[in-house]
Amino acid sequence: MNIAVAQSGGPTCAINASLLGVIKEALKNPEIGVIYGSVNGIEGIINDRMIDLKSAIHTNEDMELLRQTPSTVLGSCRYKLPSLSENAEIYKTIADCFKKHDIRAFFYIGGNDSMDTVAKLSDYFAKTGDGIQVMGIPKTIDNDLCETDHTPGFGSAAKYVATSIQEITRDSSVYSIQSVTIIEVMGRHAGWLAASSCTLHANGETAPHLIYLPECEFDSERFLSDVAEQMKLHKAVIVVVSEGIKVEDDSCRSGKTDCFGHAYLSGVGKQLENLVGNRFGCKVRSIELNVMQRCSSHISSRTDIDESEQIGAAAVQAMLKGESGKMMRFRRILDMPYTVAIDPVDAHLVANNERFFPKKWINDKQNYVLDEAIPYFQPLMQGEQIIKMQNGLPVHYRLIGADSELVQK
Amino acid sequence: MNIAVAQSGGPTCAINASLLGVIKEALKNPEIGVIYGSVNGIEGIINDRMIDLKSAIHTNEDMELLRQTPSTVLGSCRYKLPSLSENAEIYKTIADCFKKHDIRAFFYIGGNDSMDTVAKLSDYFAKTGDGIQVMGIPKTIDNDLCETDHTPGFGSAAKYVATSIQEITRDSSVYSIQSVTIIEVMGRHAGWLAASSCTLHANGETAPHLIYLPECEFDSERFLSDVAEQMKLHKAVIVVVSEGIKVEDDSCRSGKTDCFGHAYLSGVGKQLENLVGNRFGCKVRSIELNVMQRCSSHISSRTDIDESEQIGAAAVQAMLKGESGKMMRFRRILDMPYTVAIDPVDAHLVANNERFFPKKWINDKQNYVLDEAIPYFQPLMQGEQIIKMQNGLPVHYRLIGADSELVQK
Repeated sequence: MNIAVAQSGGPTCAINASLLGVIKEALKNPEIGVIYGSVNGIEGIINDRMIDLKSAIHTNEDMELLRQTPSTVLGSCRYKLPSLSENAEIYKTIADCFKKHDIRAFFYIGGNDSMDTVAKLSDYFAKTGDGIQVMGIPKTIDNDLCETDHTPGFGSAAKYVATSIQEITRDSSVYSIQSVTIIEVMGRHAGWLAASSCTLHANGETAPHLIYLPECEFDSERFLSDVAEQMKLHKAVIVVVSEGIKVEDDSCRSGKTDCFGHAYLSGVGKQLENLVGNRFGCKVRSIELNVMQRCSSHISSRTDIDESEQIGAAAVQAMLKGESGKMMRFRRILDMPYTVAIDPVDAHLVANNERFFPKKWINDKQNYVLDEAIPYFQPLMQGEQIIKMQNGLPVHYRLIGADSELVQK
Repeated sequence: MNIAVAQSGGPTCAINASLLGVIKEALKNPEIGVIYGSVNGIEGIINDRMIDLKSAIHTNEDMELLRQTPSTVLGSCRYKLPSLSENAEIYKTIADCFKKHDIRAFFYIGGNDSMDTVAKLSDYFAKTGDGIQVMGIPKTIDNDLCETDHTPGFGSAAKYVATSIQEITRDSSVYSIQSVTIIEVMGRHAGWLAASSCTLHANGETAPHLIYLPECEFDSERFLSDVAEQMKLHKAVIVVVSEGIKVEDDSCRSGKTDCFGHAYLSGVGKQLENLVGNRFGCKVRSIELNVMQRCSSHISSRTDIDESEQIGAAAVQAMLKGESGKMMRFRRILDMPYTVAIDPVDAHLVANNERFFPKKWINDKQNYVLDEAIPYFQPLMQGEQIIKMQNGLPVHYRLIGADSELVQK
């Protein structure tokens, strides 16, 4: 039997480690023949664009470099598989590709959209009786997948975010004048990543002084009075905010256009910067951690990378035991010493669902994360990867044939 | 005799290493008594706010942590010392502070403004016959100080910038659609930091595909045709731009106000993003590396940190040999194996002067940095620091009494 694996959705530091887990576990099992890597997620299956991964990745060094390379070496996609009733043809195309290459199992590494694909495809193959197994492997820096303690990629993103906020705190507090620094962190609906910055408090930092999450209602006046209160205590006030909070006066976002006629799409960081500057007239700066928070593998969490590889391997083991339509998930046994079990869960329960940051870990004023959350976050961020460097820069693995950097002729 | 040391200007990853160099060299010399740390640059001398560094920093671990802590543990200032004819009183205040504490030598770690202070103060003490020696120790991520091969702090900033651009390149190229990513790097007048991203080419990257520096005239139409050309070659075009380039159509910057009535201060990255989006309608994103490029000590260059410590020590040695009014500088002997000498140079030659990126290393089209520049940059970025971590995050050293994070009561 042959198998196929694909990567989908937004990049993370850990998604290639999960790919490596699939490859290494498959190599251990002689019944598995070709390991196909599908280029650009499920699109590679639909367009029959695949790479033989056994011949592409074959030295230990290839594997080590793959582990430390951010983003997706196989490329990604944002393709939403239509339902069978909407488009039966596409299911036929996928089945034909699997048949043509004798692919008996498909592994999809991705977020809740990808788990929707896993659920739909496994339902389809259960109906057709083809016996093709479909397995999901989670990933997202947002940590918002249901049914799992956390998601691969999150720990590394949290480590980068907390490390950068600590460094920004040092940077922001050098002058003797009052200042406010607003750091905008990814998370449209779930505030896990912004919330994880609370771990700095366990290392003796007073920053961040305020944390705003999309799980709470945001009120500009209350925000300004929170800032005023912190300004009495700290010369350099550090505010962390999820990109997804809703600033009620969103005149900045609605209707206004810039000088080129484009909608004025300032992020919330910039909006809050304007609010603070307007009210207090003090030095204020907003900082967007942007895509660096999902791709800075040079400071990835070893726990995250190790676990991401393990969960990829576990998906292959589960498939060999006959599972299909499942996503592998982490079940936490203990915070300390940190212990997790990996087991399968129905992908339908994960598909198109979101898991939010628990209210019990947010303070009453809804502007701070309680210390009770620290034991949850801390183990996910611990441990450092030894990164192979060349000329002072990390070495990245690039897969010939899948590299989307060059225009296809 | 006692000595004093202060840190000034914008933070870097290496300025505390230079402070450590001063302290360690002073400790070796029994004739040096108290080592005063002046809080918030020269302002600490003026306001007589100083810390006894020998009693504050006394274990090897303190010193190791100081080396790995970004920004300035003594705080900083942007104070421009007036000329003697403008304000003789301030010189008297400084002299009184030195006299009161028996300070016979003052070390100022900073950029060209600080070297102006070094020049003025040493001229003053030469005239008064007080015999107080004043020495400058360079620092700036901009690498724009005259009379030195490079500046402490630059190598670490360049390492962060190149590492991040490589990771952003991976992140930007996962989808099968055409995209343009514009990365804005610090450098108002000199493009050294943006230019240093050319080192990625030595590691097999085609990115960055275009590099724009403030040393060249910028033309929007030419820029758009450069981008169009690169789009034919690369699916994910990566553009690096110094914040200081002048976009001739600066309607975005002049006059326009946002919805709060503030001037619309978009950076050049955002301006170029708008230009590209408007013309090509493709996916386009601009990323500001912001203060992270000057404070990300978790990926600092060991060469930079080692040299920064050495140049601090060399300033003490030069002072003991009788020098005053000098800045210590690096003189490069060899690119490979990388060899530098450290010697003193007249601070007047550095004060209020700027050193630009050489035209000989810019291509004819003025949109790229030639490979000939790589041997200059590469050694400055090489080598990694082993960072002491706690709970998955770097440990920072904080100096009690100088920490500006708390409001002074």
